[in-house]
Amino acid sequence: MDNKIVLTGIKPTGRPHLGNYIGAIKPALNLAKELESLSIFFIADYHALTSIKNPELFKEYTYDVAATWLAMGLDPNKVIFYKQSDIPQIFELSWILSCFTPKGLMNRAHAYKAKVDENKAKNIDIDMGVNMGLFTYPILMAADILLFNSNIVPVGKDQVQHVEIARDIANAFNNCYGEIFTEPSYLIRQETAVIPGLDGRKMSKSYNNTIPLFCEPKELKNLINKIKTDSSLPNEPKNIDSPLFLLYKEFATDEQIEEMKEKFINGIPWGEVKKELFEVINSFLETPRKKYNYLMNNRHLIDEILEEGAKKAQEICIPNLNKIKEKIGCQ
Amino acid sequence: MDNKIVLTGIKPTGRPHLGNYIGAIKPALNLAKELESLSIFFIADYHALTSIKNPELFKEYTYDVAATWLAMGLDPNKVIFYKQSDIPQIFELSWILSCFTPKGLMNRAHAYKAKVDENKAKNIDIDMGVNMGLFTYPILMAADILLFNSNIVPVGKDQVQHVEIARDIANAFNNCYGEIFTEPSYLIRQETAVIPGLDGRKMSKSYNNTIPLFCEPKELKNLINKIKTDSSLPNEPKNIDSPLFLLYKEFATDEQIEEMKEKFINGIPWGEVKKELFEVINSFLETPRKKYNYLMNNRHLIDEILEEGAKKAQEICIPNLNKIKEKIGCQ
Repeated sequence: MDNKIVLTGIKPTGRPHLGNYIGAIKPALNLAKELESLSIFFIADYHALTSIKNPELFKEYTYDVAATWLAMGLDPNKVIFYKQSDIPQIFELSWILSCFTPKGLMNRAHAYKAKVDENKAKNIDIDMGVNMGLFTYPILMAADILLFNSNIVPVGKDQVQHVEIARDIANAFNNCYGEIFTEPSYLIRQETAVIPGLDGRKMSKSYNNTIPLFCEPKELKNLINKIKTDSSLPNEPKNIDSPLFLLYKEFATDEQIEEMKEKFINGIPWGEVKKELFEVINSFLETPRKKYNYLMNNRHLIDEILEEGAKKAQEICIPNLNKIKEKIGCQ
Repeated sequence: MDNKIVLTGIKPTGRPHLGNYIGAIKPALNLAKELESLSIFFIADYHALTSIKNPELFKEYTYDVAATWLAMGLDPNKVIFYKQSDIPQIFELSWILSCFTPKGLMNRAHAYKAKVDENKAKNIDIDMGVNMGLFTYPILMAADILLFNSNIVPVGKDQVQHVEIARDIANAFNNCYGEIFTEPSYLIRQETAVIPGLDGRKMSKSYNNTIPLFCEPKELKNLINKIKTDSSLPNEPKNIDSPLFLLYKEFATDEQIEEMKEKFINGIPWGEVKKELFEVINSFLETPRKKYNYLMNNRHLIDEILEEGAKKAQEICIPNLNKIKEKIGCQ
């Protein structure tokens, strides 16, 4: 894997929660440590503009995800970490790529098709409520990926199509001008267990059942106390499919997990489980939370890190773009 | 018209011909002289990428139109003159605007609709042969216009819709974030007479009937000799609807025009008309042709002028973009 570039985009569309950490942040940071590759992480703030048109939220979410990833262990000295909106070259490339993107490819993109199906079901114009950002963002994603000649793009299953689109566009360009773009491969993230939220369903912003990663201990305790449990009596054995046990497993040591399993089998009051779950999560998050709070209270530090990252990114992407422009006869 | 900004885009898709000069270059340069406004001219090279994928042609056409406009009197010290591909801010804004552009607006754009109709007539997929550059270029045009808060955009009739689209997008953005963008107005170029080509039809690259503006005198003479005439005898009166007279009118003085009219009424051999037409065009173009040839032989001078222009353009557009980014919460 030497000399390969691994690129991960982070869309800032909400306050990161425990589910985000377990399902995305943790595996991405682990992968960056495992691979002997150059890891690039970027905050895809302009992607969020297709849906977030509140400037305060837009800004807040960007700082929030930046501080979160940094607090959880992203080391800006070892990887490249920047904000998409600091790299105008991405948008210039996006236009170039659009000239090599058949419209049919966008017509078939999942997010657009889902919206069309929704509109059809309502018997209204198929493009109602579709903005061109939503329709064209797979091209912007292709630019995100191809500008850095990324080799590997770790994605969830639902993002595989985007990497395939980037490959198709790279191919169309390469067929015209010779081998310029590296064709990226996707790396599907291993499925983690579904992380349950307060109501037992998958933890998700859209269900409004999340536990924020960096809420204060008191709020964390309150939220954990709200997690749904069955009506078994305190001394009865407990079901290890309980959300409480699933969450516990993610933060406890192997030894702690074994002990807790015993207790579940022998019977333990839910209140006791919640207390222990709080302890284990809270102690895991204590140091990161301090770092997160420090960064959020000193946002100029986040700005500085991202500016530095943008410089490092541009050392790679400006020469790349210049080569592309030369190929099309633009320089 | 004080303090207003007038913006004119020039798409480099072929070698400029006499029809381009009379129909577009001359009126645009005259307008810039008449108005006490800041005139901005730009070479829309990236727009040409939707159709021109030959790097040599792409480069050649860009130099060709730049040298042509400069040779015909565009004064880079009095106006701002740059190449679109030197201004990455345009593409960044284009993405921002796309998030405020309903897809329906693009579905109704003329160029796309024409292509759809063509495909329908052939009974093939409506999007066959449509690339996303073609589909989305009205958004890029909106960015071209709005980034400079242009007040007036001189256009041919077929371009009115693009300015209207830019207004719609500006409005959608302003409704969301407050009055940021100036709503541009179009100024329809006065219809000039249709300039006939070699075969008597409108002079147009697509009819392959053009006379290049800066061909050498010998070629100019040859081409003029090829212009179609009717079969009237040498001494018979001639029809002033002849392409020869229509072209003559565009380059001769009023006095010369009156004299030629007399000759047409009294009878003059077509060969004689062609000779006089050559003389009048050739003498008009002599000085500009020298300048054009000089620039085309010293392309670094064109580069320097355009680089200087890009700097002047960015003095306006970088602060504008920063204001926009602040509004969306991106800075």
